[in-house]
Amino acid sequence: MTENKKSNEGLTAKKEENFSEWYQQLILKAELAGYTSVSGCIVFRPTAWQIWEKIRDEVDKRLKKINVKNVYFPLFIPESLLKKEQEHVKGFSPEVAWVTQAGNTKLQERLAIRPTSEAIMYESYSKWIRSWRDLPLKYNQWSNVVRWEFKHPIPFFRTREFVFNEGHTAFATKQEAEKEAIQIINIYKEILEDYLAIPGIIGKKTDKEKFAGAEYTLTIESYLPNGKAIQGPDFHHDGQNFAKAYNIKFKTKDEKEEYVWQNTWAISTRMLGVMFALHSDNKGVVLPPQVAQNKIVIVPISSEKDKKILDQSKKIFKQLSKYDPILDDRSEVTPGFKFHEWELKGIPIRIEIGPKDLKSKQAVIIRRDTSEKKITKITNLQKQIDLTLKEIQNNLFNKANKLLKNALDKSDNLKDTLNKLQKQKLVLVPLKNSTKAEELLQEKFKGAKTLNMPLKQPPIKGKKCITTNQPADYWVYVGKSY
Amino acid sequence: MTENKKSNEGLTAKKEENFSEWYQQLILKAELAGYTSVSGCIVFRPTAWQIWEKIRDEVDKRLKKINVKNVYFPLFIPESLLKKEQEHVKGFSPEVAWVTQAGNTKLQERLAIRPTSEAIMYESYSKWIRSWRDLPLKYNQWSNVVRWEFKHPIPFFRTREFVFNEGHTAFATKQEAEKEAIQIINIYKEILEDYLAIPGIIGKKTDKEKFAGAEYTLTIESYLPNGKAIQGPDFHHDGQNFAKAYNIKFKTKDEKEEYVWQNTWAISTRMLGVMFALHSDNKGVVLPPQVAQNKIVIVPISSEKDKKILDQSKKIFKQLSKYDPILDDRSEVTPGFKFHEWELKGIPIRIEIGPKDLKSKQAVIIRRDTSEKKITKITNLQKQIDLTLKEIQNNLFNKANKLLKNALDKSDNLKDTLNKLQKQKLVLVPLKNSTKAEELLQEKFKGAKTLNMPLKQPPIKGKKCITTNQPADYWVYVGKSY
Repeated sequence: MTENKKSNEGLTAKKEENFSEWYQQLILKAELAGYTSVSGCIVFRPTAWQIWEKIRDEVDKRLKKINVKNVYFPLFIPESLLKKEQEHVKGFSPEVAWVTQAGNTKLQERLAIRPTSEAIMYESYSKWIRSWRDLPLKYNQWSNVVRWEFKHPIPFFRTREFVFNEGHTAFATKQEAEKEAIQIINIYKEILEDYLAIPGIIGKKTDKEKFAGAEYTLTIESYLPNGKAIQGPDFHHDGQNFAKAYNIKFKTKDEKEEYVWQNTWAISTRMLGVMFALHSDNKGVVLPPQVAQNKIVIVPISSEKDKKILDQSKKIFKQLSKYDPILDDRSEVTPGFKFHEWELKGIPIRIEIGPKDLKSKQAVIIRRDTSEKKITKITNLQKQIDLTLKEIQNNLFNKANKLLKNALDKSDNLKDTLNKLQKQKLVLVPLKNSTKAEELLQEKFKGAKTLNMPLKQPPIKGKKCITTNQPADYWVYVGKSY
Repeated sequence: MTENKKSNEGLTAKKEENFSEWYQQLILKAELAGYTSVSGCIVFRPTAWQIWEKIRDEVDKRLKKINVKNVYFPLFIPESLLKKEQEHVKGFSPEVAWVTQAGNTKLQERLAIRPTSEAIMYESYSKWIRSWRDLPLKYNQWSNVVRWEFKHPIPFFRTREFVFNEGHTAFATKQEAEKEAIQIINIYKEILEDYLAIPGIIGKKTDKEKFAGAEYTLTIESYLPNGKAIQGPDFHHDGQNFAKAYNIKFKTKDEKEEYVWQNTWAISTRMLGVMFALHSDNKGVVLPPQVAQNKIVIVPISSEKDKKILDQSKKIFKQLSKYDPILDDRSEVTPGFKFHEWELKGIPIRIEIGPKDLKSKQAVIIRRDTSEKKITKITNLQKQIDLTLKEIQNNLFNKANKLLKNALDKSDNLKDTLNKLQKQKLVLVPLKNSTKAEELLQEKFKGAKTLNMPLKQPPIKGKKCITTNQPADYWVYVGKSY
């Protein structure tokens, strides 16, 4: 497929028939991302990037309220520094991009491009944190990271460079540190639900799937129409693992020396892909109004150039300026051409003004999500727009939520579970806390893995692990997953 | 020097005696930046980073008004792509950090960490731009770049990784492209003057000093108290140089194929350093109120714990919440300790409340920049704060402007010029447009170079170049420079 095309060239693949081809076309034809000659990396084009900036600003606002401060640490991590925490380096080193040369000079020590910034940040934390007075220390950065995936890259979902926030906090006690989990998860949940219209399952990762170096990991897992789960924002409680590796100690009030307790947490540009994939349809992108920059496109409808219709359109354009509307007054293309183009690009509401509307002092409102038409008096337009934007936002969330809820299932035996996985369900199953138990699952059903353990657990006593047949330790969702 | 210290430990070096030691101490002790084990890179600590975010937001707001859209391109540039524009690669390749390995795999082609993004962006521009309808194309990104300087790194001024905006615009005609210069330079000038309180000289770089690949470069040059100039934001008109190298063509209205005309422009984190160095003093940082996050610190003064004074302080704290004040109610340190700490960190205004103030329903306001004290009735406090913040902002700009204006000088012969350079002047001199003329200058006075040619030029006819003695082509500022 090419990026050189007419601006309204539609999608030829169907979401329900060939999801992955449909997604690729959507991303390119709606100008959300572009490819370059760097394999596995994408360009974030304006529509996608402005949504990321919106996510950043909204998350940031909420982080500031809980006294998190933004910082910026170097992109590079010397190899020796990265290697200080054993689990961490084991998890990341297969994917690290290494700088070995600068200009014509070979570097004495290889520098990792940060895959995440624990190593470089905690070196400084160990200098900055001295006493209980320095705690809690709550820093965050918005940064680009590189994880050189050798799997097939997918725009937004899996790219070798991506952008995220990384919060890195340090506390005097484990209890205080763990209290942060709910604050952070709630912020991410709010952004996902109220802005991106993405529902999710909140739970704890198994030890096999947790973050490299963490004591435990909480995630929000989402579900896509192709039957696959995808991991969203996460929160890691690190205990004192990194504190011990990077020597981050403080003096308590009674002058004892102790290691700090740490958390890290992140939301990434992956969520853009989840949002595009979840809501969009065979006509193109569908954007939740809360994140759409231009919430309205106004299209004057007139066979000849009718100045009165254009004037009326301009008047409405001004009146609705807070929605950052687009007035499409091009004369070289037909209204139909324009409809296709803006549907492809996902503008939430289209307003049409034709001769009849002009006469009756009305306008036609068309919803992008349902194609529903409403005729509204101009005097009532602003109110109707507000209402319609809310309806679209709610409809997208509710549809996605229904999709997720319909996919949730439960089982306590392997045969039934495999059958349900076949039907693209996310199945809550009893499992033993062992790598073996999860490997067996993946053997039996390629592509399936554990997602997370819901925080509210059904009774587990007496249940057998569906793969090892030994006593189960917890209920955990399993499903096909990215 | 160490980063482990008491929070109010003052500067021991004097700005007027040993500027570079003073600057280093300022940056570390006021917690603006930190060093890591990556040589030449710094950590941007919260005070510095929030100012950068302020610059970003203010610049961004203005760019959006002129229809610039934000994007994000990959960090990596394949070597073959970087090499397409000859002058560009010649200018940058000595400083490029190269990725040669990912995980355990040696890459087939080396990847440059972007020193700037022309190469990677224009590859996409050549796909996206087809017709006059696609122009102007005005994109910008906020990104981190790496230029592996082998000179001595200085925090903010010269670091191997820094953060900047890079605007990359394409137009149908040279005239349209050149019109953008004044828009962009005015935005940068406004941010420098009204926010950072940094005055500058606007002018054109000589061919020797212009951006690698540009037709010409405009800059804003600033002047530091140590007698050195430093280049600030810049605007490059690229003509069709990159368009030809990266094959960016469009069809005109009459169906002819032409190359686009391009500009690039940037403001970087270097300006943080210029601002810190320009305004700060021997007590610590001085911040222009327009960029200070916490504009006020409130210090209750009471020998014992006087609950009434604390209550009054809290009341004022609430009343002044829009200035994001700090209430320093620590009981374990003295008021004097607190004064030193907040002076070191550069809070623009300190408010003291003592027993006498409580009784008289007043507060004491102390300006960080002049140490001037004012006693104000509480009823008048907000008004007085507003006024004082404006006075500080103006005072900082005026002082810096006076410093710059006093440094500006003019000369039309070499001996006099060298004499003035010795006195740390920036000297406007007639020069021939040749590399030789500039090399001779640098030979005669180590550390001096051409800064820029003011847009309004004095008459040049009949003037001789001060170094080659041949007919001069222009008046240009020369000075010691970073």
